[in-house]
Amino acid sequence: MDALAARSSSFAFTIDVENPPVPSAPTWARACTLQTPHGLIQTPMFMPVGTQATVKCLTPEEVQAAGAQIILANTYHLMLRPGSQLIDSFGGLHAFMRWPGPLLTDSGGFQVFSLGHLRTLTEEGVTFKSHLDGSLHLLTPERGLQIEAELGADFVLPLDICSGYPCTPQEARQAMERTHRWALRALEAFTQHPHRPERPQALFGIVQGAFEPELRQESARFIGSLPFFGLSIGGLSVGEPKALMWELLRATTPALPREKPRHLLGVGSPEDLIMGIDLGMDLFDCVLPTRVARHGGLFTRYGRVNIKRSRFRTEHGPVEEGCDCYTCRNYSAAYLHHLARAEEQLYYRLGSIHNLRFMLRLAAEARAAILAGTFPAFRDAFLASYVPASE
Amino acid sequence: MDALAARSSSFAFTIDVENPPVPSAPTWARACTLQTPHGLIQTPMFMPVGTQATVKCLTPEEVQAAGAQIILANTYHLMLRPGSQLIDSFGGLHAFMRWPGPLLTDSGGFQVFSLGHLRTLTEEGVTFKSHLDGSLHLLTPERGLQIEAELGADFVLPLDICSGYPCTPQEARQAMERTHRWALRALEAFTQHPHRPERPQALFGIVQGAFEPELRQESARFIGSLPFFGLSIGGLSVGEPKALMWELLRATTPALPREKPRHLLGVGSPEDLIMGIDLGMDLFDCVLPTRVARHGGLFTRYGRVNIKRSRFRTEHGPVEEGCDCYTCRNYSAAYLHHLARAEEQLYYRLGSIHNLRFMLRLAAEARAAILAGTFPAFRDAFLASYVPASE
Ligand SMILES: [Zn+2]
Ligand SMILES: [Zn+2]
Repeated sequence: MDALAARSSSFAFTIDVENPPVPSAPTWARACTLQTPHGLIQTPMFMPVGTQATVKCLTPEEVQAAGAQIILANTYHLMLRPGSQLIDSFGGLHAFMRWPGPLLTDSGGFQVFSLGHLRTLTEEGVTFKSHLDGSLHLLTPERGLQIEAELGADFVLPLDICSGYPCTPQEARQAMERTHRWALRALEAFTQHPHRPERPQALFGIVQGAFEPELRQESARFIGSLPFFGLSIGGLSVGEPKALMWELLRATTPALPREKPRHLLGVGSPEDLIMGIDLGMDLFDCVLPTRVARHGGLFTRYGRVNIKRSRFRTEHGPVEEGCDCYTCRNYSAAYLHHLARAEEQLYYRLGSIHNLRFMLRLAAEARAAILAGTFPAFRDAFLASYVPASE
Repeated sequence: MDALAARSSSFAFTIDVENPPVPSAPTWARACTLQTPHGLIQTPMFMPVGTQATVKCLTPEEVQAAGAQIILANTYHLMLRPGSQLIDSFGGLHAFMRWPGPLLTDSGGFQVFSLGHLRTLTEEGVTFKSHLDGSLHLLTPERGLQIEAELGADFVLPLDICSGYPCTPQEARQAMERTHRWALRALEAFTQHPHRPERPQALFGIVQGAFEPELRQESARFIGSLPFFGLSIGGLSVGEPKALMWELLRATTPALPREKPRHLLGVGSPEDLIMGIDLGMDLFDCVLPTRVARHGGLFTRYGRVNIKRSRFRTEHGPVEEGCDCYTCRNYSAAYLHHLARAEEQLYYRLGSIHNLRFMLRLAAEARAAILAGTFPAFRDAFLASYVPASE
């Protein structure tokens, strides 16, 4: 491990298997193992999102039973409520939310730009008004890492600038270059002036570059050359067409260092997970699986179904035949249909458990296929049978 | 067991201990055991309410872990959605909602009068418009038992008329007398024309009489003289002052047969539970513990607290020191405070679990005190320390 940005030998990254990109079945898929002070993560891995120190509707036991090895929490939300100092006084986020495994906190950048009001962006950082109470907050690369030190996640991300879609190449370059300067400041602060040196953390760098393949490559090379422990690909899945997103990622991956974990921020759906794995990503996070579940959308190997549809009213079998989740092992689709129609909270739990388990099982199956050297066939079979939702 | 209104020898009722009413510490408290095809119930027992075939927010495992031995479900809601025939096709409510223990379905009467629109009350029954879709429904004593046979609960209640508060003595008598005639029709239908003879059920009678002690006594003697398996006291806690409710119950109990289980419908709070046990009741049900929990109200031995209050923001300890519920064993009050303020669904679960466990532990402690012959002291100590909420 040559990355300086891990404050302890508790962190390590090992590539278990890389599929050789043969001409007949090219893929960049790889299976890796991340070591953290809170346990191992075997990739490809999907990270459930616990925005407000809770994966919506679920207990830590349920998230673990679904197969999750790491949760992502949102720095922006937690700094505003309940506040990072409060969480620090409870021994950090692990103890506060009672999650024993690894945690990652994002940089807050994306949420500042999507939720914060009246943003003022300067070289120093970004000033914004809280969406909760209108209070003013300044977030800088240094301040962000202080907050993340108080939150105490295993993996932390530095403040970045996330451009909206569309944006001009000039705007994209300016945002990327400032993100790069902030990355240097974050690295300096993290390694030279650690806020909580007794709490081991590892710092990821964020690759930006908006919707310009050349900028994406430039950013990947620059951020990849710095001593970050891992790399998060930011600014994708923010409204651009899917085809463009994959084109950008396809341009990015070859410019990334091989020996660092790669995290695709805010992606995605089941088909996005498979596509992202194919393009060499290791870690994924997204609210989509739990959010669509709460609206009735449940994943099956043939695509997403809506449990509120009348065809489920009399369905004695589970939502998905053969699914090993708590929901499918115990409840009929008709019962879920009834709960969802009646807007009973138990439905939100049962639906979330199924979709999380679907994503985590899919990631585990992808890993098994990579280890067996059969990922391209696995990918093709999945994408051939899974009909993506049109949204 | 001399009650005809149990269609199987699977049902039995045994009085384990009656506290002798000594002048120094008079009480009618008693500890009993109910045998059902789905297991034993040891009274005094609080029944969580599963209105729509789910105790709101919770899985059956969680309800069981809180100590519940029986759930009450609402006939009115289930006949409208998803429909009793659908539930029947799944083998009844036990299988549909996956609750392995005993179940009780109420008569639907109270909900028809509180939720149904455009009611037309005749000697035959009551016609009402669904609060869901405006569809017209006729509920009669016979039809009610058919629906309850399809739902398949262990204990079923016959259609009754629940007077609102206040009402004139004339209205009270008319409603009571019609309830009595309906009780006879229900008994006849239940014993002579059973809808699902292969599914053992036991029929409770409902005592009415509104807010007139004499009518309450008359109803208790009349309904008590019929071969019902048990007796439910209806029409209380519908808006009348608490003191009047207890006066009415105090007039009722001595007129009830000793050898039948007694159920106080729709009551109550922790202090109501203790008062009702003291006045000779065996079974209780109420949405209050889970409903107030969802609004932030959590029970402690000193009264109800609101978890959203700022004093819990930094509270490292549990909501109630020494509580053996899942919530208190695992989470700080500060974390619950955060979840409740953030309106996270996990709060509704954790709060509901605590309040249900509080009620069920209180009932179990009352039973232990009755068995030990120390109930009056237990009652006095609880009521001296527990400050009722002012609502
Ligand atoms: Zn499932
Ligand atoms: Zn508790």
